[in-house]
Amino acid sequence: MSLLVVGSVALDSVETPFGQKEDILGGSATYFSTSASFFSPARVVAVVGEDFPEGHLNFLRGRGIDLEGLTRETGRTFRWKGRYSYELNEAQTLDTQLNVFQAFSPKLPESYRDTPYVFLGNIHPELQAQVLDQVKAPKLVAADTMNFWIKGSRAALLKTLSRVNLLFVNDAEARQLAGEHNVVKAARAIMAMGPQRVVIKRGEYGALLFEAEHIFACPAFPLAEVFDPTGAGDTFAGGFMGALATSSGVLDQALLRRAMVMGSVMASFTVEKFSLERLREVTRPEIHARFAEFRKLTHFDDLGSLER
Amino acid sequence: MSLLVVGSVALDSVETPFGQKEDILGGSATYFSTSASFFSPARVVAVVGEDFPEGHLNFLRGRGIDLEGLTRETGRTFRWKGRYSYELNEAQTLDTQLNVFQAFSPKLPESYRDTPYVFLGNIHPELQAQVLDQVKAPKLVAADTMNFWIKGSRAALLKTLSRVNLLFVNDAEARQLAGEHNVVKAARAIMAMGPQRVVIKRGEYGALLFEAEHIFACPAFPLAEVFDPTGAGDTFAGGFMGALATSSGVLDQALLRRAMVMGSVMASFTVEKFSLERLREVTRPEIHARFAEFRKLTHFDDLGSLER
Repeated sequence: MSLLVVGSVALDSVETPFGQKEDILGGSATYFSTSASFFSPARVVAVVGEDFPEGHLNFLRGRGIDLEGLTRETGRTFRWKGRYSYELNEAQTLDTQLNVFQAFSPKLPESYRDTPYVFLGNIHPELQAQVLDQVKAPKLVAADTMNFWIKGSRAALLKTLSRVNLLFVNDAEARQLAGEHNVVKAARAIMAMGPQRVVIKRGEYGALLFEAEHIFACPAFPLAEVFDPTGAGDTFAGGFMGALATSSGVLDQALLRRAMVMGSVMASFTVEKFSLERLREVTRPEIHARFAEFRKLTHFDDLGSLER
Repeated sequence: MSLLVVGSVALDSVETPFGQKEDILGGSATYFSTSASFFSPARVVAVVGEDFPEGHLNFLRGRGIDLEGLTRETGRTFRWKGRYSYELNEAQTLDTQLNVFQAFSPKLPESYRDTPYVFLGNIHPELQAQVLDQVKAPKLVAADTMNFWIKGSRAALLKTLSRVNLLFVNDAEARQLAGEHNVVKAARAIMAMGPQRVVIKRGEYGALLFEAEHIFACPAFPLAEVFDPTGAGDTFAGGFMGALATSSGVLDQALLRRAMVMGSVMASFTVEKFSLERLREVTRPEIHARFAEFRKLTHFDDLGSLER
């Protein structure tokens, strides 16, 4: 089934201890849709400026991504500049230029309105709500958010959250949103705000999926070389949602858990190179092989001889 | 098979956001041996002072722990005082009084010398080596260490490490010891120092077992109530080693992984209450039930319908 993402398509400038790049392809909708496109047809709602290279759009089209909802406006493309230290867990934002993103007001093409899987990237919660006003009876609505909206637009965020089925947040955001340090309690508090499911992303420590009755813990793949973590969270969400969208049936535990692992698989590729360089070249057999590696990484048997 | 631990038996004073206790039972050898005793017979080499309550020793004896190697010396027992914030991941040490521990020089009773599984708790690496000088052909030697020895007694530590089969360290210690930020590279660097296996403990994020050919990722149990993290690492090591010591055969992947999970199971109980209060009352069915919960927490199926 198809899935829709609303978010940024950007030009990033990134510094890591291993190198530096200017004006490379970035943005939440870019990472999300590319990652999802390995599993399900993706549709993008976003805006770019006059300076956005057509080659980047051709790359997305080449992955079968529907760009009917992506508009090109007068002005410059959204730009983000960040730096990572050896910690690599959190970027220091050096500069943000909203440019054409400042006046972004998501409009869904008619053909997008019946999309069953919807991902609201990390934009103003009122814009996220505006997207939901335009879709007809989606099967699953997932959203991302950040400290900026949690602090600055809490009322609007809570209103949007009441219409969301699944929220992706990192530890710190979960704690801030819930006003609760313990992540289990924080996840429960967030579920009381609307979402039936919460995914707490913990960077190199993996991710936790919380539901009313279940918790699933998925590690991050232990990589000896992490080159650039930019986009890892959106790649994770894209792989997760892309995997879910392969199903037209109920979202059972088996599928949700596979989707969590697939999100982690895709994110583990993204961080191996700058921008979407690794996602451009990754193959289906590589994806399946890494999924198998995740099983080896986490598998253990029952009590066996310990059950005396 | 039996296992031996050398380490501290202490009286702790602990402050957490949830309460405060003075002079409660603590120490690495205490947590380790109690946790291990659920699976295998444990032997303790340690020292206490005149003020150490006989009731605590009776508790350990009641768990079948051999205290022949525990001596009572003139003076006061080792005391540690620490405080945890809501973070709960790391204690702030408020006071350390070595007391009788200052002159501690581990002497193994004759009956301990053939112990097959040896755990060198976090003491001076020269004292750890002194223990190894007294054991005959152990099957597995594991050790713990800390920033203080990594920085202050590096040469002695490296000498001891060359005689150790498995090292337990946390992320920060692994990075400091290896001089390498990436944990995969850090683990490999430590393995080059001697140990064939490295367990990297990551507190609420779980633990990683590194071997030449395998990595196993074990999450921590997501608890809504973490009361006091003191002793979690030693409880983990005790559960891990106690589970391993049930085997007289080769340490295969299946057993090592079960042991990792059992370490995590035991640690998840310890942190639910102050001191060893939870370990005092925990039952075998509770331990088995939590092991089963760990399987539910981490289990996922193969690619299934995602393998198109």
